[in-house]
Amino acid sequence: MNNILQLIQSHRSIRKYSDKPVTNEVLEELYKSAQWAPSSHNIQAYSIVTIRNNEKKRKLSVLCGNQKYIESCRVFLVFCLDFYRLKLSSEMYQANIEIDEIENLLVGAVDTALAAENVFIAARSIGLGGVMIGGIRNNPKEVSELLHLPELTVPIMGMCLGYPAQNVWQKPRLPQRVVIHEEEYKTAHIMDGLLEYEEISSDYYTRRTSGERTDGWTKQMAQYLSAPRRPNLRRFIEEQGFKLK
Amino acid sequence: MNNILQLIQSHRSIRKYSDKPVTNEVLEELYKSAQWAPSSHNIQAYSIVTIRNNEKKRKLSVLCGNQKYIESCRVFLVFCLDFYRLKLSSEMYQANIEIDEIENLLVGAVDTALAAENVFIAARSIGLGGVMIGGIRNNPKEVSELLHLPELTVPIMGMCLGYPAQNVWQKPRLPQRVVIHEEEYKTAHIMDGLLEYEEISSDYYTRRTSGERTDGWTKQMAQYLSAPRRPNLRRFIEEQGFKLK
Repeated sequence: MNNILQLIQSHRSIRKYSDKPVTNEVLEELYKSAQWAPSSHNIQAYSIVTIRNNEKKRKLSVLCGNQKYIESCRVFLVFCLDFYRLKLSSEMYQANIEIDEIENLLVGAVDTALAAENVFIAARSIGLGGVMIGGIRNNPKEVSELLHLPELTVPIMGMCLGYPAQNVWQKPRLPQRVVIHEEEYKTAHIMDGLLEYEEISSDYYTRRTSGERTDGWTKQMAQYLSAPRRPNLRRFIEEQGFKLK
Repeated sequence: MNNILQLIQSHRSIRKYSDKPVTNEVLEELYKSAQWAPSSHNIQAYSIVTIRNNEKKRKLSVLCGNQKYIESCRVFLVFCLDFYRLKLSSEMYQANIEIDEIENLLVGAVDTALAAENVFIAARSIGLGGVMIGGIRNNPKEVSELLHLPELTVPIMGMCLGYPAQNVWQKPRLPQRVVIHEEEYKTAHIMDGLLEYEEISSDYYTRRTSGERTDGWTKQMAQYLSAPRRPNLRRFIEEQGFKLK
């Protein structure tokens, strides 16, 4: 197994960081890595806002649902899907702009995530650790105001980065047969794979929390889906200029 | 610069492949790499369908907009966002299921893209090359029938893989100041960056096509946005069980 596979397959989320600063030279490598991500039709429909200001990190930490490691990380990156400059390009030529299909939102979210994963892997290759933050969508309006995000941009994920100051366990993933299918999707494999994973994941949480948390993955997911998630997000996306037809 | 940064920053899309087969051992490394991608709340809301059957690749090639390299690649992967097994998990506990917020679609698309980028980097580290295929969303209903995709799954991207049989140029990206912002989004940088990129990209296409194609990026993007993109996608997503509130 080569060192790239090793790095990818040893993924962990790191939430405690040493004081060692992240230099501009390191950030430069992360930015270049982001920009070389694949992009559908080369539309490059994302932007990154880099936050190092402590007061701003503190505010974002609260807006993302009181995740303290956003305040304590050395650099916090906000990845946004971004059609703002595409609109500017259209306006240069007085061209018609059709932005309302759900397709555009999906393409932008995918471009953003591809760039984010490149940054994450690049960062780990340099010795950094971090965690992605979906909580950036908790209060998108306030985040948008704080970061001066223009129309047609939507924060998709945050990323805390810093040099690791903790060792964490690797969380077991779903059995492969649940996720990977040969030639066609095989629903017959799913249920027994989920029951197997319920045991594996319950055992993992029980050991990691010394018995404080014992629910496995299926119980957690049943809980996850039981209430509407971020019901205000749609209105924000529409206010940013996407009609989501 | 370490070899991981080098790999990421030397990205190219490869559309011609040698006859050398992709072994099961190689696929196994790609699957493991997919599964170790970060996932919001560990929901792992994606699945992969691996296609090696020639007749199926030929059909997919047509459905994706006559992209011949889907037929000629050694392995074609279809990455789907997937809430099907999350619904099964909820049903195990007779729990309420709230799936209708746009948030779920975004989380699923992000999980899918993170896994896809891991696979892409892992593949390149082994010597494979490939290209991601957004055209998998051209005819999602037909793709879904061909691959027997169950409810609450949506094909997000395809990926052609094989050992490279071509050298291609690296396509220049947007100037960094257009994409990366320090502390807050700075719209003032954008327009002159776009004008600079119009020249760079126009020059690139002119050289690559010996003058057959001369439009730069802003012209291409004005064209890209001028007509609705995949207007049928929304109906398919709703038929798959997402109400997109």
